[in-house]
Amino acid sequence: MAQTTPNHTLTVSGWGAHDPSGNITPYTFKRRENGVNDVTIEILYCGICHTDLHQVRNDWGSTMYPIVPGHEITGIITKVGSNVSNFKVGYRAGVGCLAASCLNCDYCKDGQENYCDQLQFTYNGIFWDGSITYGGYSKFLVADHRFVVCIPENLPMDAAAPLLCAGITVFNPLKDSNLLESSGKRIGIVGLGGLGHVAVKFAKAFGHHVTIISTSPSKEKEAKERLGADDFIISTNPEQMQSKSRTLDFILDTVSAEHSLGPTLELLKVNGTLAIVGAPEKPLELPSFPLIFGKRAVKGSIIGGIKEMQEMLEVCGKHNITCEIEVVTPNQINEAFERLAKTDVKYRFVIDIAGKSSNL
Amino acid sequence: MAQTTPNHTLTVSGWGAHDPSGNITPYTFKRRENGVNDVTIEILYCGICHTDLHQVRNDWGSTMYPIVPGHEITGIITKVGSNVSNFKVGYRAGVGCLAASCLNCDYCKDGQENYCDQLQFTYNGIFWDGSITYGGYSKFLVADHRFVVCIPENLPMDAAAPLLCAGITVFNPLKDSNLLESSGKRIGIVGLGGLGHVAVKFAKAFGHHVTIISTSPSKEKEAKERLGADDFIISTNPEQMQSKSRTLDFILDTVSAEHSLGPTLELLKVNGTLAIVGAPEKPLELPSFPLIFGKRAVKGSIIGGIKEMQEMLEVCGKHNITCEIEVVTPNQINEAFERLAKTDVKYRFVIDIAGKSSNL
Repeated sequence: MAQTTPNHTLTVSGWGAHDPSGNITPYTFKRRENGVNDVTIEILYCGICHTDLHQVRNDWGSTMYPIVPGHEITGIITKVGSNVSNFKVGYRAGVGCLAASCLNCDYCKDGQENYCDQLQFTYNGIFWDGSITYGGYSKFLVADHRFVVCIPENLPMDAAAPLLCAGITVFNPLKDSNLLESSGKRIGIVGLGGLGHVAVKFAKAFGHHVTIISTSPSKEKEAKERLGADDFIISTNPEQMQSKSRTLDFILDTVSAEHSLGPTLELLKVNGTLAIVGAPEKPLELPSFPLIFGKRAVKGSIIGGIKEMQEMLEVCGKHNITCEIEVVTPNQINEAFERLAKTDVKYRFVIDIAGKSSNL
Repeated sequence: MAQTTPNHTLTVSGWGAHDPSGNITPYTFKRRENGVNDVTIEILYCGICHTDLHQVRNDWGSTMYPIVPGHEITGIITKVGSNVSNFKVGYRAGVGCLAASCLNCDYCKDGQENYCDQLQFTYNGIFWDGSITYGGYSKFLVADHRFVVCIPENLPMDAAAPLLCAGITVFNPLKDSNLLESSGKRIGIVGLGGLGHVAVKFAKAFGHHVTIISTSPSKEKEAKERLGADDFIISTNPEQMQSKSRTLDFILDTVSAEHSLGPTLELLKVNGTLAIVGAPEKPLELPSFPLIFGKRAVKGSIIGGIKEMQEMLEVCGKHNITCEIEVVTPNQINEAFERLAKTDVKYRFVIDIAGKSSNL
């Protein structure tokens, strides 16, 4: 593919970090010219994912500086390559975590590019032409059209942005456990943050009974009144947890902090599934007794493939599902990072890249 | 049910332990008279399960002394209650881990008595009439017919005995992952002991490619030549493990010692399943990255229901599957326990309760 995108001549204004302090400052850099398979997107909004915070601070030891984060991107297509037929100038586009994959392996052919072993991410990845990828904290993005999705007309571009990562992350395990086709199941959501609050919206839209499992009693009122949750359990209260033993069909665990899976597993009925989408750095504790005596399963997944991203967005369009967001300006990113580190956000920060939000 | 089995007047010779030393000595005790729903079984053989060792030594703190272990029981029916139509005197019978359940809950009605929350075990349990259950290290057993299975005519009663626990334990997860209906899958078996060696036989009978994952290089020759395994990986050799990354569809982990699931998970393809049937006392280590980046699942299960036990035995009859055993006399039980604690057995001890084995 390198021959189609040899020239990095497009000057782009963005915001990035230059060292593990993670401090974000304006940063002007080059992107490739729009290639035959590419679309160029004028970015309107970009969500702030907890991953961004880990990456700018080099928490995982793999950051290539300078880094321009951002993988929850919405914008308008301004240029289309000659091989591209499914997008036109003016289309409402979205880009999530994926920038490239091999396109040939079984996973790529099966719409599971997210598990391709040559997968490259939207930022801090290495594109086909050897260049380091820069993400959505920037005015323009050049993306291969096979990794771009359309945003339904009825969804606002700001509140839709976090769907590209947070949304697909929770949509995939719900879909994989057949919870889109069934209704009336009893579903638990562990953690009510950027991921958890979208999961509640999906689960309610699909007609399920939703229980929030949280360490924060203060979240109960809002979980029920604003998000429509049916029940609320304090996970640090053993009596409450025990009283709900064997009551849930499926639990989605969105928590990235270290925790034992034992008490959560006990909430599941026999044959129930605990889906893990958080990624604690230390291993999770998995006691064997609640696993084997309840014939339970613990499943992992990470984001979703492109076809599934588009399906998720159609579902969001149909049910009017977006994220609850706080819009910030680019010069408020550092402040947003600080608040995010304290989980002081309801429920996702979104950067107004193009300066079009009236409420700032 | 108590009114149908009020009288514990049947004197039975057996072998049991009286304290946490776990020393087994002859022990004569009483069983209930054969009730209307019961069958009486003259025990021929009883397998020695690792659970027996834990229970006689009170490793789990729940042992009621004196204890008569044994839940891998084969024998001949000598008496049949008036409500019993599916067994006759002279039938070849088997009894596994289950002595009683509520018979009314969703799990019982669905043939999953093993997950009933009123489940009682064949020994160290409390039967419906309030009596403590005594297991198969004894000359006779009185069992409710709903917890008894038939042993196919072509299977030897000694080598069939461990199927009642070890066999069903590994059969269930293979069946649940649809490995009876498919063939040609790549299956890993972690640990080549009492459970693992039967799993190899099942997996080969169903037409799969079988890889043993073991800490013991010395087992490779026998695994391949005697049991028919196709491949053998040393789990403590990181290069070997890494070279097999993403190659297996399904792994059955039979190991009860503490271990991290991470390296094993890496062997699975995307969407692969790791089935856990061992029960380490301390929590297993479950690193989130191989779980979520491979969309893998960790599932638990414990034995199986009665209907499934019978199905498993029919499958064993069809494919001539039995356990590899060492037959011991009742007065060799303590010696067998000592060797079992050192995993010095190929692959299961079976006690010749009735003294009918010619090769002792």
